[in-house]
Amino acid sequence: MALIVQKYGGTSMGSAERIRNVARRVARWKAQGHQLVVVVSAMSGETNRLIALAKDVSPQPDARELDVMVSTGEQVTIALLAMALKDIGIDARSYTGGQVKVLTDSTHTKARILHIDDANMRRDLDRGTVVIVAGFQGVDENGNITTLGRGGSDTSGVALAAALGADECQIYTDVDGVYTTDPRIVPEARKLERVTFEEMLEMASLGSKVLQIRSVEFAGKYKVKLRVLSSLEEEGQETSGTLITFEEDKNMEQPIISGIAFNRDEAKLTVLGVPDRPGIAYQILGPIAENNIDVDMIIQNVGHDGTTDFSFTVNRGDFARTKKLLEEQIQPHVGARAIEGDSKICKVSAVGVGMRSHPGVASKMFRTLAEEGINIQMISTSEIKISVVVDEKYLELAVRVLHRAFGLDQA
Amino acid sequence: MALIVQKYGGTSMGSAERIRNVARRVARWKAQGHQLVVVVSAMSGETNRLIALAKDVSPQPDARELDVMVSTGEQVTIALLAMALKDIGIDARSYTGGQVKVLTDSTHTKARILHIDDANMRRDLDRGTVVIVAGFQGVDENGNITTLGRGGSDTSGVALAAALGADECQIYTDVDGVYTTDPRIVPEARKLERVTFEEMLEMASLGSKVLQIRSVEFAGKYKVKLRVLSSLEEEGQETSGTLITFEEDKNMEQPIISGIAFNRDEAKLTVLGVPDRPGIAYQILGPIAENNIDVDMIIQNVGHDGTTDFSFTVNRGDFARTKKLLEEQIQPHVGARAIEGDSKICKVSAVGVGMRSHPGVASKMFRTLAEEGINIQMISTSEIKISVVVDEKYLELAVRVLHRAFGLDQA
Repeated sequence: MALIVQKYGGTSMGSAERIRNVARRVARWKAQGHQLVVVVSAMSGETNRLIALAKDVSPQPDARELDVMVSTGEQVTIALLAMALKDIGIDARSYTGGQVKVLTDSTHTKARILHIDDANMRRDLDRGTVVIVAGFQGVDENGNITTLGRGGSDTSGVALAAALGADECQIYTDVDGVYTTDPRIVPEARKLERVTFEEMLEMASLGSKVLQIRSVEFAGKYKVKLRVLSSLEEEGQETSGTLITFEEDKNMEQPIISGIAFNRDEAKLTVLGVPDRPGIAYQILGPIAENNIDVDMIIQNVGHDGTTDFSFTVNRGDFARTKKLLEEQIQPHVGARAIEGDSKICKVSAVGVGMRSHPGVASKMFRTLAEEGINIQMISTSEIKISVVVDEKYLELAVRVLHRAFGLDQA
Repeated sequence: MALIVQKYGGTSMGSAERIRNVARRVARWKAQGHQLVVVVSAMSGETNRLIALAKDVSPQPDARELDVMVSTGEQVTIALLAMALKDIGIDARSYTGGQVKVLTDSTHTKARILHIDDANMRRDLDRGTVVIVAGFQGVDENGNITTLGRGGSDTSGVALAAALGADECQIYTDVDGVYTTDPRIVPEARKLERVTFEEMLEMASLGSKVLQIRSVEFAGKYKVKLRVLSSLEEEGQETSGTLITFEEDKNMEQPIISGIAFNRDEAKLTVLGVPDRPGIAYQILGPIAENNIDVDMIIQNVGHDGTTDFSFTVNRGDFARTKKLLEEQIQPHVGARAIEGDSKICKVSAVGVGMRSHPGVASKMFRTLAEEGINIQMISTSEIKISVVVDEKYLELAVRVLHRAFGLDQA
């Protein structure tokens, strides 16, 4: 008998029929003798509907009140799933974040979980009751309702698994696992049986939208065994998804590269001819951060003649605003020669813990791209990832040839 | 400076624009220096939408879970109203039933309020904050969410006013007060400046749908000054509605009759020739009550020849079921001669505390109806009410002539 936390997203809770499907799936796990805590999101579209309603009343809704309102989405689905379970003879009980209670700080709309009280849930689990918890929400020390920010239900699931010492946290989604790359671009992409947390973090931040990155960090921190599964598979056809492990499997031959990630939603900016002196990076990026613009890659090469070029990438939606900021405020301030920008770029990355012990991954990657005539505009590396920025038009080609070059299309 | 509890129904909260209207109204009261607690219902239609969704998932939804779900309707509107108030510079704070907290028993979907903790609300009021409370809901001693049953927001308003010792509880609705009768039937009907609780109870139970009867009982029990007002009146055009007083105004000439109430939603049944012996009423009405059929008027006249006739009225929707029950189970059991029934009747009542001290009201009522050729089928009286059952087709005529006969069309 294991204690399992399952998390179902908005698509899985999207209609009465789907909710009954989830209930049947939960019942099958229960029938195998497991204890179950089920974390659910709001019905798909509901959170957006509520936010739109709030904005209809108030252009900039008060954050505390927005949380009161938006948290109702999950309050509806916990009740519906509990009803559906009782209907098929499974004892179940719903809990709001406040009823659990999931204690958070008071940062409304993006609160952080501080502590989870497991007493009520344990009592129910010991009685054989399925515990259903509203994802995405908590309460602060004064009883104010808080929410964890978009995608926070994954984090709720992992945090509950950590608090309960669950044997596994299963994230049900509309894909059946983590792939070596996007199968829409490379049909030969394979599902990974397992992937390490570090790889998953790099994949997630690079645009593999399977899991919310914060939940992966959380799982790594508390050593929660995380599994991504499909909620769409029929009874008897279920696969075991992808297990996200918090240590490398010592018994297995580690693949050098686990996957090719990419992101076409970026734009690059370069500040040309900035004085090569201490503090220049901060003088450029400080104002960017103050304007709430997220910066991804940052590259500065060795300078010459006392100046250097400084490049970085931002979300494409922030491109125009960032360029204006650079031209009007930063260029005169730091005394740069010129500002250049390009929003028609993309980032392609090879990710794998195996590259730690295998030199030559970078050169293989660069050679593969060169053979296809793809010019590399920027390069950035971490311990387990090599990212390049190339012209947007080469995205599919680059992903495809790298996927093949690193043997990811072979089992 | 007064402490005022205002309650707004689902129509008043029905759209973003209406919610902003309510906010402006609250702001005007606040500007007069009053402390305000505002109780709100869910947006009109929302509770029904949620119940339909629940029934879509589960034919007979679990009552505890239904409360978890349905209570979200008011959780949305408290947040929206708080946002709207903040937008116009009024400090406001929303509270769910659990956050107040409104302690109830554990009878899900029709819980009764046991106690209201006023500490949080007092703290906010002392700071000049407008307190916004979700109507219709509470929590039991184990923290389970409960609801008070349909129309429970009126009860929430009155209960909060009682707990806070408010100077007045204002119920905003889509009519501007209590009328001497339905203006759709008698255009000369006048709005009453004040009406006693007893009269209001008789009016409410007779079909004046202005206030939920439970809230009126509650107000009478705790001596809460209750006022019915229109939420549709424009700024500067507001009237003072109808004040529901818990004692007769000694300084005023009391009108004999305050209003003519009516109900066309009834049906009458008669058990003919039942043995005139003790316990017979219980033998007839016991099975009716066991089948959850509400009985309104009950009439039994003196018998003769050892038998009597026993009549009562029920909701028209229960007529067929009640008749079947009488014929198949009760008639053979009590040894009655026959069962008669008529679903084409209506009840017309004259209500007024003044009739206590003014004999002759009944005879005036009967004479007025006789002059119009309206046959009276049943008569029932209380201390402040005389009700008659007449053929449905005479409803409008009876109401009109009685309204005139008792001088209600004159200020």
